[in-house]
Amino acid sequence: MKLFKLIPIFFCFVSFSQNKTDSIALKSIYNYYLTKSKCYSNLEYLSTKIGGRLSGSPQAAQAVIWAKKAMYEAGADTVILQPCMVPHWVRGKKEKCNLTSAKLKINKPLNCVALGNCVGTGPKGISASIIEVKSFEELEKLGAEKIKGKIVFYNVFFDQTHVRTGSAYGETVKYRGKGASYAAKYGAVGSIVRSMTSVADDEAHTGNMNYDTTISKIKVPTLAISYKAADLLSESLKKDADLKVYIETDCKTLPDELSYNVVGQITGSEKPNEFIIAGGHLDSWDNGQGAHDDGTGVVQSIEILTVYKTLGVKPKHSIRAVAFMNEENGLAGGDAYAKFAKEKNEKHISALETDAGGFTPRGFGVDTTFGLYNLVSKWKSLFAPYFVERIEKGGGGADLIALEKLNVPCIGFEPDTQRYFDIHHTAQDTFDKVHKRELELGSAAIGALIYLLDKYQ
Amino acid sequence: MKLFKLIPIFFCFVSFSQNKTDSIALKSIYNYYLTKSKCYSNLEYLSTKIGGRLSGSPQAAQAVIWAKKAMYEAGADTVILQPCMVPHWVRGKKEKCNLTSAKLKINKPLNCVALGNCVGTGPKGISASIIEVKSFEELEKLGAEKIKGKIVFYNVFFDQTHVRTGSAYGETVKYRGKGASYAAKYGAVGSIVRSMTSVADDEAHTGNMNYDTTISKIKVPTLAISYKAADLLSESLKKDADLKVYIETDCKTLPDELSYNVVGQITGSEKPNEFIIAGGHLDSWDNGQGAHDDGTGVVQSIEILTVYKTLGVKPKHSIRAVAFMNEENGLAGGDAYAKFAKEKNEKHISALETDAGGFTPRGFGVDTTFGLYNLVSKWKSLFAPYFVERIEKGGGGADLIALEKLNVPCIGFEPDTQRYFDIHHTAQDTFDKVHKRELELGSAAIGALIYLLDKYQ
Repeated sequence: MKLFKLIPIFFCFVSFSQNKTDSIALKSIYNYYLTKSKCYSNLEYLSTKIGGRLSGSPQAAQAVIWAKKAMYEAGADTVILQPCMVPHWVRGKKEKCNLTSAKLKINKPLNCVALGNCVGTGPKGISASIIEVKSFEELEKLGAEKIKGKIVFYNVFFDQTHVRTGSAYGETVKYRGKGASYAAKYGAVGSIVRSMTSVADDEAHTGNMNYDTTISKIKVPTLAISYKAADLLSESLKKDADLKVYIETDCKTLPDELSYNVVGQITGSEKPNEFIIAGGHLDSWDNGQGAHDDGTGVVQSIEILTVYKTLGVKPKHSIRAVAFMNEENGLAGGDAYAKFAKEKNEKHISALETDAGGFTPRGFGVDTTFGLYNLVSKWKSLFAPYFVERIEKGGGGADLIALEKLNVPCIGFEPDTQRYFDIHHTAQDTFDKVHKRELELGSAAIGALIYLLDKYQ
Repeated sequence: MKLFKLIPIFFCFVSFSQNKTDSIALKSIYNYYLTKSKCYSNLEYLSTKIGGRLSGSPQAAQAVIWAKKAMYEAGADTVILQPCMVPHWVRGKKEKCNLTSAKLKINKPLNCVALGNCVGTGPKGISASIIEVKSFEELEKLGAEKIKGKIVFYNVFFDQTHVRTGSAYGETVKYRGKGASYAAKYGAVGSIVRSMTSVADDEAHTGNMNYDTTISKIKVPTLAISYKAADLLSESLKKDADLKVYIETDCKTLPDELSYNVVGQITGSEKPNEFIIAGGHLDSWDNGQGAHDDGTGVVQSIEILTVYKTLGVKPKHSIRAVAFMNEENGLAGGDAYAKFAKEKNEKHISALETDAGGFTPRGFGVDTTFGLYNLVSKWKSLFAPYFVERIEKGGGGADLIALEKLNVPCIGFEPDTQRYFDIHHTAQDTFDKVHKRELELGSAAIGALIYLLDKYQ
């Protein structure tokens, strides 16, 4: 009986003491990130000196060189450039979208941005009547007779009742992605989409689209207009169904380019062929600075490498910061990373992505496979003092899809979502929109999680 | 045995069903606040049409009239103006603070703002050498010999390692509050304080100070300089200990003015003499628009009145939105509210204050007295879908101090704190710094809590 009683007490003691050791380590990690971290100055360089860096662009190539240097400076013992071929879409001249109605005496430019991967109109542009729809079902009901020769206007709002703004994005993004192909199916000459945004302003939001040849073989030009422009267009249509919109875009897809993932590593002291990674994507849309999307994720990932020097410890497993290439329009980097991991027989025991902006952390979404969720859930009390409360089931990121297929348990970092879609894929996604402490708190949360994963996995 | 087994099952069923009813009510409340609430447009009016509204000012008087109207519009059946005498301090002409050093060839204005309640220098200003200290202890050690005739410069930074920025504020605000009196005690002719801020920018932060006659009977002028100005002053002092600073302020304290708390009520259907209140403060500093501090709290409090119409229910208890007067420099409104409550024998069963900015909600701090914390803790799962996770022990607000003394259990609303002290008490506390959805989510959290308190208290 005595023995049975002693065992739990002994375990309690170990557990308590362990928890205290970890608490002290987390406090050190947070103190470092909130006072000495370089993530903010790194982000300033990436956003303002390099700027928007779409795959295949000279800026993306500069970002690769910069990331390699930044990873060595952060403490990587090895930096690997993983080659991958990426699409090379170029916007060309600034897009035009003009609303004219003789009846309403309107001749007004609408703030617009062409969607990534789309074809251009050529210099003569396209002028056509507008048919407004709220869904693909409505488009189908209207049919070719009412759509042919027109521009389809997908006027779909974000559902503001979602607390996570990402849920509203998830519901509406299909009109950006497949709207042009569905429009072309019924003979439309182009498509326009209301910007995917939770704020009623005049910014146009770009993003990727794909011509789905199973829907239509015809590629028509497509662009997004701002929330306010969409309001004006919709209101004007009610008063003049025959109004015209002129669109002119200069986009082209050039041959694929060679690019790279940048992988900074601190080699593990005990299990060097077992890997824990944190990544963001290095490419960004060309119309902004790619600050929140995903400069913040890149600098937060690089910053995990600094934890070990700070604490004066060596990781057991190999720790990698990954700057993935081509998340925005192709996922070539994510695919290449998984391909190399498989070829080299690298065992990945966990992978985290940070690609939701550099806002105040709320928590992590964690895969339930291989017990990872159960493990991370045990650390709730360790993270509570830092306001990182939500350990939810299921997580990852677009760059990790290919790794997930190799059974790697994944984690998605979740910051506050309220302001993300105000600036997402716009000219406003600039360095000044990132708050230093919010960014650092995210870095600290991720750094602390990677530290614990290495210790306990 | 069967009976014993049945009882828990029956309880489970009731509890589950109750929880479901409450979940549905909360969803309705949130849907309303995220799509139809007027809190954002109300805030726009209060911030941009009325603007900064220090107690005793014409703007504060306008705000009283506005709040009364807004409360009726929100659904109050009664709006009471509670009179209170408030201090009437005026800033006068824009302050000046100038750094000169012949040795360093510097003659540079420093961004500055006089502290509320302080005396002016008169039009001739004061020019003196500077003695920099990091604490009152250091000041005491230096003693009168080294301080006499100089201006004391309290160069104390926010401790950035706190996750809650309010903790750093709590540590440093004493230099703003009592710094002038301690400086005068040792013969200084004035005092300057590094702005209470977590961001390294050029904004000067005002706030209240008090001449503590138990420390010194002499009143010397005092002002705050920006973070960057404090850096420059401190760096310059290292190179030229004899540099001079000129300060000129035009502040005056005029006779007390009559002002009001504005109290909007929906009278309870079952217990009309039992009150549940939510309040913010109507007054604000004069140098900004008082948007986050505390326009957001006022409009969020007013907005609780709309819940009942929305849900089509009547509250059991009397529900009050309170716009307190004079939180910033006197608490006359909070004192008056408690005095009236006592005189009229009004039973207050809970009181909430929202005075920490209109940022994304994190939770509530709840008094442990009279079981309130235990009650609110039961609703954690109801609030979890809305990312309102932290129900912590202890809460309230400055305007509720007098009510707490009457044993009213109090609650403080806690939004995210990261950006609050960037703009707190500065010219940058303007409407454009408030995010619509963040504000609305705060309103919804408060509205939902008041709804549950009325139902279950």
